[in-house]
Amino acid sequence: MASKSMSIIVTKGSLDWAYPPFILSTTAAAMGLDVTMFFTFYGLPLLLKNLDLKLSPLGNPAMKMPMAGMHMGMPNIASMIPGVDAAASKMMSNLMKKKGVASIEELRTAAVDSGVRMIACQMTMDLFEYTLKDMIEGPELGGAATYIEVATKSDINLFI
Amino acid sequence: MASKSMSIIVTKGSLDWAYPPFILSTTAAAMGLDVTMFFTFYGLPLLLKNLDLKLSPLGNPAMKMPMAGMHMGMPNIASMIPGVDAAASKMMSNLMKKKGVASIEELRTAAVDSGVRMIACQMTMDLFEYTLKDMIEGPELGGAATYIEVATKSDINLFI
Amino acid sequence: MASKSMSIIVTKGSLDWAYPPFILSTTAAAMGLDVTMFFTFYGLPLLLKNLDLKLSPLGNPAMKMPMAGMHMGMPNIASMIPGVDAAASKMMSNLMKKKGVASIEELRTAAVDSGVRMIACQMTMDLFEYTLKDMIEGPELGGAATYIEVATKSDINLFI
Repeated sequence: MASKSMSIIVTKGSLDWAYPPFILSTTAAAMGLDVTMFFTFYGLPLLLKNLDLKLSPLGNPAMKMPMAGMHMGMPNIASMIPGVDAAASKMMSNLMKKKGVASIEELRTAAVDSGVRMIACQMTMDLFEYTLKDMIEGPELGGAATYIEVATKSDINLFI
Repeated sequence: MASKSMSIIVTKGSLDWAYPPFILSTTAAAMGLDVTMFFTFYGLPLLLKNLDLKLSPLGNPAMKMPMAGMHMGMPNIASMIPGVDAAASKMMSNLMKKKGVASIEELRTAAVDSGVRMIACQMTMDLFEYTLKDMIEGPELGGAATYIEVATKSDINLFI
Repeated sequence: MASKSMSIIVTKGSLDWAYPPFILSTTAAAMGLDVTMFFTFYGLPLLLKNLDLKLSPLGNPAMKMPMAGMHMGMPNIASMIPGVDAAASKMMSNLMKKKGVASIEELRTAAVDSGVRMIACQMTMDLFEYTLKDMIEGPELGGAATYIEVATKSDINLFI
């Protein structure tokens, strides 16, 4: 299947939702597909050197306003119950480890090592005031047009 | 790339999640692709004339039961903290404006003007008791079968 | 359109988000497409014999950590307000019924009967400690590689 290809738009950065894009991309790369991941929105922080996957509700796009909660110091409903976030995240991490599932860091390294092309969304970089220096080695900058061009040539296109 | 095409199923109607479908569709249209947006579920209200993107947690499908919260007068956890919704939405809007990102209204107009085909899901219309009179000019009515037919002919298909 | 095909990754198991994959897959199957559903993550429980779609916030991946909440006995913010979950789920179910929308159980049966191929994610099965005996008749076991192989041959690929 060397001539097949896949693109994934990665928009969610929580501990749970970080798994599907990395599992799919590393699996596809291992099968010989050309894979491109486009990190944008709440998924962009998955490229940060210091991956903060305490992954509490606070950073969970499925739970509240992460933009408000993470970046603007907004009060946060879930975080009002002390210890819940950290405890739940730890339990999930432990469960994953016990079951032999690789961590997000490990999967991310595997993706880079297997030649997955990673694009960091320029607009989101600006919005969050990140630079490539905050990110791991590997990602290039790009915009929606970069993505569209890749996707028109890909056999599989997913928005996660 | 005039002969390429893209379809997007738009299922989320919150201030943040309204951005990806409109940014992708306007970008693709500008690149010459034929674009179809299928508005359904919580994404259908994005076609309303009076776009209510105070976009609080109350209307945020990522946060709670919008169907219950928005349409049936259910109590709502997030809305119990006075002012949080409005404040966070305003902060996000301000940030977007400061960074030069177009508003959802502007992107929606751009999409219509650039010939993006918009389909309003008939079943969701019935469920929410909307009619085309509640909507902006442009959308046509259609169902899942309409979408499937479009998607089988599109190069890129996304579910957002 | 007999030679067209569609794959759907089903990752969400709440009462509302269970609808899109089943509506799309049954519609596509009725139109003659070959359809494959890959149930994984929070979407895997949709294959359980005993479908628990009281579908409260507790089982709603869009609201909190279902893994923690459902499987590990974590405290749960939404569930602290007595009766909210059950009441909201019942109201939604009633609304669907009143509007003539089929239930998830009915749509699932229709999908099986119309020959939709269903794959249960092996990794998620292990994580949740399910076996095929917990599931309805029909699904086979598979992994990400199984999905990738199907998707490379499908005209439409969606991640829901």
